[in-house]
Amino acid sequence: MSSIGIVSPQSMQFAEPLPLQSGAAIADYTLVYETYGTLNADKSNAVLVCHALNASHHVAGVYADQPKNVGWWDNMVGPGKPLDTDRFFVIGVNNLGSCFGSTGPMHINPASGKPYGAEFPVVTVQDWVTAQARLADRLGIEQFAAVMGGSLGGMQALAWSTMYPDRLRHCVVIASTAKLSAQNIAFNDVARQAILTDPDYHGGDYYAYGVVPKNGLRVARMIGHITYLSDDDMAEKFGRKLRATNPADTDDENGAERDYHFGFGVDFEIESYLRYQGDKFSEYFDANTYLLVTRALDYFDPARAFGGDLSKALANSRAQFLLASFATDWRFAPERSREIVRALIDNKRRVTYAEIDAPHGHDAFLLEDARYLNLVRTYYDRIWDERNSKVAA
Amino acid sequence: MSSIGIVSPQSMQFAEPLPLQSGAAIADYTLVYETYGTLNADKSNAVLVCHALNASHHVAGVYADQPKNVGWWDNMVGPGKPLDTDRFFVIGVNNLGSCFGSTGPMHINPASGKPYGAEFPVVTVQDWVTAQARLADRLGIEQFAAVMGGSLGGMQALAWSTMYPDRLRHCVVIASTAKLSAQNIAFNDVARQAILTDPDYHGGDYYAYGVVPKNGLRVARMIGHITYLSDDDMAEKFGRKLRATNPADTDDENGAERDYHFGFGVDFEIESYLRYQGDKFSEYFDANTYLLVTRALDYFDPARAFGGDLSKALANSRAQFLLASFATDWRFAPERSREIVRALIDNKRRVTYAEIDAPHGHDAFLLEDARYLNLVRTYYDRIWDERNSKVAA
Repeated sequence: MSSIGIVSPQSMQFAEPLPLQSGAAIADYTLVYETYGTLNADKSNAVLVCHALNASHHVAGVYADQPKNVGWWDNMVGPGKPLDTDRFFVIGVNNLGSCFGSTGPMHINPASGKPYGAEFPVVTVQDWVTAQARLADRLGIEQFAAVMGGSLGGMQALAWSTMYPDRLRHCVVIASTAKLSAQNIAFNDVARQAILTDPDYHGGDYYAYGVVPKNGLRVARMIGHITYLSDDDMAEKFGRKLRATNPADTDDENGAERDYHFGFGVDFEIESYLRYQGDKFSEYFDANTYLLVTRALDYFDPARAFGGDLSKALANSRAQFLLASFATDWRFAPERSREIVRALIDNKRRVTYAEIDAPHGHDAFLLEDARYLNLVRTYYDRIWDERNSKVAA
Repeated sequence: MSSIGIVSPQSMQFAEPLPLQSGAAIADYTLVYETYGTLNADKSNAVLVCHALNASHHVAGVYADQPKNVGWWDNMVGPGKPLDTDRFFVIGVNNLGSCFGSTGPMHINPASGKPYGAEFPVVTVQDWVTAQARLADRLGIEQFAAVMGGSLGGMQALAWSTMYPDRLRHCVVIASTAKLSAQNIAFNDVARQAILTDPDYHGGDYYAYGVVPKNGLRVARMIGHITYLSDDDMAEKFGRKLRATNPADTDDENGAERDYHFGFGVDFEIESYLRYQGDKFSEYFDANTYLLVTRALDYFDPARAFGGDLSKALANSRAQFLLASFATDWRFAPERSREIVRALIDNKRRVTYAEIDAPHGHDAFLLEDARYLNLVRTYYDRIWDERNSKVAA
C-alpha cells in the first residue's frame, strides 16, 4: 500500500526553553519527527510537511511492527508521488502538545514531577513554527524548498512565510484559512465543552485517576467529523439508509423495507458511522491535546496584529505560493483561500491557486483525486526545475 | 410587547389510548393548548399552529403572572398580526412527549406509578397529528382554515395535508423539509449521544436521582444552536470579537487591543453567547423530551412508504399550500422546500412559494422580517377573502 515502505520515527531533545506566544515557556521538550528521502549536499531539497488536528509526524510509509499504520499523507509523499522523495528530503514533525510522541500534556512536567495535564501551556500555530524552525536549525536546514500543509497544517505553512520569510522558497497551503470564522470557533467550543464537562476530565488531571474523558472526546470528534464531510457527500454515502439489523440482511439496498427501531440506538447508517468514528478516536487521542489543538486553530489570525488587514500581515512574505481549496469544503470554504490569494496578490507575490470541484468536503485534502494530486505534482516539478536551472546557472 | 395581551393555557384529558406509529400506545394523556380569537358560528375560521423543537402551545400573548413570557410566534399571531386573531381562531397545542404541560417523560406512567423517563414511547410527527386531530374533534372543529408551522411545525402541517386531507383548506409550511438529510440526522445523533452518555442521565430515570443531565443537554443545545444560525449572521454578529474582560471595557469596538486568555474559558463573544444559550436551555428543557423530539425529526419521511417518491406521498393532499424558505437557512435549505413544491405541482396542487433572502439562517422563521410577515399576511388575507366570498355565494 505504501510505496515508501518502512520508516522510523526519530526524536530530538531541546533543553533551551521555548518562549511561547502566551508569555509562558516550555523547557526540556522533545520533538518527534520522521524524514523521507535524502538531504542533498547543499541542503536545498528539504520540504517540511505540517500536520493537522489529529495527525502526526507519521506522514508516509509504515512501521516495521505496524504494517497497517500507513502515514496520513502517503498518497502525497513517497518515491514517484506528487511530493517525490526521490527528489526531495521530506520532514514530518509532531507538534508540541500533541499525543504522538512530542512533549504533550500526558508527559511529565519537570517542574512538578507529574503529568502536565491542564498545566500544559496553551500553544499556538506560531509556537509550533518556532519549534519547527529550531528543529530545522539542528538538522542544518537553513532554507526549505517548501513548507506545506493542509487545514491546520496550511496555517503553519502560512505562518512560516511571514515568521521566517527567507527560510522557505515555496509555501503550499491547502484547504486552509487565515482565520477561523465564528461558526468554526463555535464548533470548536462545543467540542471543548463536551470534554471539559465530562466528569472523567477531572480538571485535566485524569491521568492520575486512571480514566479518560472518553464520552466528551467521543462527542467532540463526532461534531468535528460532521464538519469534515460535505452535506452532498454524506447524502451520497449515507443518505437516510437504515443499518441492517443483522449482517445477512444485505438484499435491501435502499432500506425501504426495514423499519425504524423507535428508540435512540442506531437506526441510520450515518449514526453507526459517526459513533464508530467517535469511539475509535476516543481510544487513541488525548483529550488535553484536543483542547490545545482546537484552541490553536481558534487563535490563529495573523491579520489581528495589523488591524485585520491580511495584506499587511503577509507583506513580509518572500516565498512563492501554491494554494488549493475544495468546492464542497464548508469548514474552510474556497472563499477563505481566495482571501489569502488576494492578500498575496496585493503584495505582488507569485501565487498559483486552484479550486477543485471535489465532492468530499474538507476531508478532500487527504483523499485521492487525480486533479488535486496532479496539481501538487506539477507544482513540485516546477520547484525541482527551478532548483536545477539555478544549479546549472 | 404582545398585542394580544394576557392568555391562559387550557388542558384536555384523553382516556382512550392513542395508538402510536411504533405499535405502542399512550393511555390517559393530557394535551395542553391555548386559543386566541373567537371560533365563529360555522367553525370555519380555526387555524392550528404547530410548534417546533423547543417551543410549546404558548404561541402568542403573555401570562398574567409571567408578563415577560411572550409566546414564541407573537410577531405572527394576534390582533392585526399576519395571522389576525380578529379574524381567525388560533390554536396552539403542546405536543405529546414535550415538557411544557402535555403528557411527557416527566409525568407519572399510570402503568408503573413512576415517571415515564425512558419508558415514554417514541412519538412521531404523525402521532402528534393524530393527537391534534383528536383535540380538534373535541373542540368541534371538522376542518381548519389552515394548519401552519415552521421547521418541525411545518412537518406537522405537511403531515396533516395527507393524513386528514379534508380537514384543512390551507397548509402553511415554513422553513421545513419533507425529510432530514444525513447531516441533519448526524447533528441530532451527536446531540443525543451527549445526553445519553452524561452520567446524570441514569438511563433516562434521572428524575428519581434528583439530577438532570445538564452537561449533555447543554452541549446538545449548543450544537443545535449553531445549525439555527447562518454562517454569515454569526460572522456579522460575533465574528472574531473578543469578549470584554470587564463590563467597563467597552471602548474597544473591534477587540483588537484585547489579548487572548490562553486558556479554555471564554475568549470570543461567540463562545459566551453559545454557552449562555446552552446554560439557559439546560435549566428549563427536559433531556428525555430532547431525545424524543430529535428522533421525531429524524423519522419524519412521508415518502418512505412510497419508495422515496414524495409526489406519490403527497398525492392525496387536497389543501392549498403556502411554503416559504430562507436563503441562508442551511439546516433546512430552500432546496428542501423546493422539493415539496415540485411534488405538489406534480399533483396539480395550488402552491404559493417564496424564498426570502434573509440573513438569519433557520431562525429567520421566528424573526421580524417585513417581506416574510407580509407574505404570510397576504396569504391569510386570501384565505379570509375566499371564506367570505364562499359565505356570500
